[in-house]
Amino acid sequence: MERKPYVIGLDLGGTNSVFGIVDGKANVVASVSVKTKGHGTAEQYVADCCEALKPIIEQVGGIDKIQAMGIGAPNGNYYSGSVENAPNLEWPGIVPLAKMFEERLGLPVALTNDANAAAIGEMTYGVAKGMKNFIMITLGTGLGSGIVVNGQLVYGCDGFAGELGHVVIDRGEHARECGCGRKGCIEAYCSATGMVRTALEWMAIRNTPSTLRDIPTGELEAKDISIAASQGDKLAKEIMDYTGELLGKACADFANFCSPEAFVFFGGPTKAGDLLMEPVRKAYDENVLFNYKGKAKLIISGLDGASAAVLGASALGWEL
Amino acid sequence: MERKPYVIGLDLGGTNSVFGIVDGKANVVASVSVKTKGHGTAEQYVADCCEALKPIIEQVGGIDKIQAMGIGAPNGNYYSGSVENAPNLEWPGIVPLAKMFEERLGLPVALTNDANAAAIGEMTYGVAKGMKNFIMITLGTGLGSGIVVNGQLVYGCDGFAGELGHVVIDRGEHARECGCGRKGCIEAYCSATGMVRTALEWMAIRNTPSTLRDIPTGELEAKDISIAASQGDKLAKEIMDYTGELLGKACADFANFCSPEAFVFFGGPTKAGDLLMEPVRKAYDENVLFNYKGKAKLIISGLDGASAAVLGASALGWEL
Repeated sequence: MERKPYVIGLDLGGTNSVFGIVDGKANVVASVSVKTKGHGTAEQYVADCCEALKPIIEQVGGIDKIQAMGIGAPNGNYYSGSVENAPNLEWPGIVPLAKMFEERLGLPVALTNDANAAAIGEMTYGVAKGMKNFIMITLGTGLGSGIVVNGQLVYGCDGFAGELGHVVIDRGEHARECGCGRKGCIEAYCSATGMVRTALEWMAIRNTPSTLRDIPTGELEAKDISIAASQGDKLAKEIMDYTGELLGKACADFANFCSPEAFVFFGGPTKAGDLLMEPVRKAYDENVLFNYKGKAKLIISGLDGASAAVLGASALGWEL
Repeated sequence: MERKPYVIGLDLGGTNSVFGIVDGKANVVASVSVKTKGHGTAEQYVADCCEALKPIIEQVGGIDKIQAMGIGAPNGNYYSGSVENAPNLEWPGIVPLAKMFEERLGLPVALTNDANAAAIGEMTYGVAKGMKNFIMITLGTGLGSGIVVNGQLVYGCDGFAGELGHVVIDRGEHARECGCGRKGCIEAYCSATGMVRTALEWMAIRNTPSTLRDIPTGELEAKDISIAASQGDKLAKEIMDYTGELLGKACADFANFCSPEAFVFFGGPTKAGDLLMEPVRKAYDENVLFNYKGKAKLIISGLDGASAAVLGASALGWEL
């Protein structure tokens, strides 16, 4: 059967739902954004989204030009096509979003979580093209992951595999509380939020002067830390080193699972470039088991941040 | 093409090389054991083994009745069919054992490491029959692992994936040295050897009376600990609890990778049964991410210890 020229990608975030129509060469040829909240029911959300999609679908020549749709969503389950108990969305319980879009659009629709979508995006369009074994790490509010083994996403027995952000890196009594209710998860240290927590903690316990002290604590963001570090702020530089060191140590442990050919990092904190990646690589090399030394590349995503999530979701559509 | 009725399994250990001829129902119909050391070269080892195999091959009706051969060996690499830099074998460097047996026997031969062979054995003949996602944990001198995702062994980019024994469980300054040259690996705590280290450490720092104190330290084995625990020895019981607790916590972390439907435990320490498995299950339930709670079974291998390694290796032969 002939392939149609486009897929739709939906990056479903807590605030915005960004739709893109994507061609086979990773060009987002048309896009539209809908607020995720405020539709009442999930049914109404899907109806409103499809209404907003109409003009851009017409723009590319109508629904017959579209192969399928892929959705990347928090707590997305690939097996069921549902979003399940997502704390940042306003629909309770299990919402069969893939099926709901499928029925309205008359297209096959696949859904997975955002980090898995990012991994598929890298494999289809990005730096992981041609790789059969790699680990995607997304750094944002949380630390997400998508694991590819033998060319396939690892979904596990329930569709929820690949939560590396919740591997415990600190088992000490002062380990940080994580949003999951447990303590010491790598997410509580190395996500964008984790970096801010490190900054607040260190500003409290140290006297080192820092431009970060000029920012109200409630407004401090990870990007302030990397900007300050790039301008030579000592404390900020040490936070980058610490974050990178923990991330490198964690990745060294992850290598024991699947001996990947690469770790691909994505998200705001990676914009710091080598300020983050140098300590990551150093700690990885120092901590990885001798078997794996020098085998995995530790690289930053090659996809444009603004459209990467949409591209990732759309790539799922090409698999249908 | 018609399947032949038998496969040969070779469990290649540091001391003994045990060959078994196995039928499709997991019966070891004939077997022979050869000392692993003392042959000089690997070529001579293979020649001597094939000589020892002749009578048992004749016993089942000759080489035409045999489909293939599978080898489970320390540091075995499935991709290359080689044993690579195995510290406990007397052949240096990279030894292409699969190819060497293939040439002498005229049979297809596959090779993997012992823990992967155990995983394939459980999947073919044991408690993991029909499972697509599970983690095999072998407890012996080391802590080995074989990981199955989507029904396939995880080999990674280099054939060496699945070294969960070298995930770091203790990052503190008093973390134990591991045989791999690093510190704090789970293997240094939860293998049979690790249990003995715990016993020695605790006998030094505590005054608790224990029947373990009657055993010369150089002779103390993990089985002494489980026997003492089963007879009510308090210190021994606490060592079982501690070992199980660390193992359960480690498995809770492993779930984040591949959300397995089961963890299958194999090896000497599992003979303690619930004395080990109860603390493992308790710690797993208390530490696993909420997503995965109640999903994975934590079970002991169903294969007979004496023949399990041979069965595991032989199962690899059925895949050829």
